[in-house]
Amino acid sequence: MIALNDTYKLAFRYTQAQVQAFADVTGDQNPIHIDAEYASTTPFKKPIMHGFLSGSVFSKVFGTLFPGEGTIYLRQTMEFLRPMYVETDYEAVFTVKEINAEKHRAIVETVIYDTTTQKACLRGEAEVMNDKKI
Amino acid sequence: MIALNDTYKLAFRYTQAQVQAFADVTGDQNPIHIDAEYASTTPFKKPIMHGFLSGSVFSKVFGTLFPGEGTIYLRQTMEFLRPMYVETDYEAVFTVKEINAEKHRAIVETVIYDTTTQKACLRGEAEVMNDKKI
Repeated sequence: MIALNDTYKLAFRYTQAQVQAFADVTGDQNPIHIDAEYASTTPFKKPIMHGFLSGSVFSKVFGTLFPGEGTIYLRQTMEFLRPMYVETDYEAVFTVKEINAEKHRAIVETVIYDTTTQKACLRGEAEVMNDKKI
Repeated sequence: MIALNDTYKLAFRYTQAQVQAFADVTGDQNPIHIDAEYASTTPFKKPIMHGFLSGSVFSKVFGTLFPGEGTIYLRQTMEFLRPMYVETDYEAVFTVKEINAEKHRAIVETVIYDTTTQKACLRGEAEVMNDKKI
């Protein structure tokens, strides 16, 4: 069971090969993500990860780790605060902000921090349902 | 240039192989998405797509089609209204709700409809910036 104010943290990092694989499966071949030469001409200087690849760590955690199996995803917001890069250490931090035990629903703050700078790169809020764990 | 009330539509469908590829790259191996036997024991009866795979059509469109090259993604909300399935025709519909010409920003409604039933499956709102096209 998850409870009010519970937190969960997951460290992660991605490779450029994974970014390319994400571009291939989603069709999002925006060169800012996969073309280093193009990216060097932009304010970001080097390829940035797809926001949806970064954010999918939220889905992975809710569906497989916290609260895990049986979770139904109801909604997610994402603010892309800072560019995120491959070969960089990040930590996704989850904090349970509201519990509705009757409806088995939780509202969870979801933030990705750069592990080195401790700056928030992606911030959002999710609502999830789980009959057995909320 | 995109303008207030402009709309853009993109039809799409996914295969189970693409869902598996998405699970592999994101690490979201929730069996509801990739295990037909497990899925048959749930209210959904068959595997459902990852919401983040469905929603990534928004990123693909903003970054490569509408408004396209040079777009910076600022935020996205997603409400997962109905389960989405592979081998099913969907249409993503984009409607420009607000334009801030000075800041080159637009707020865009983003909805995915089941092409057959015309029911909304995923509804959200995005904010994007593009120095040349907004």
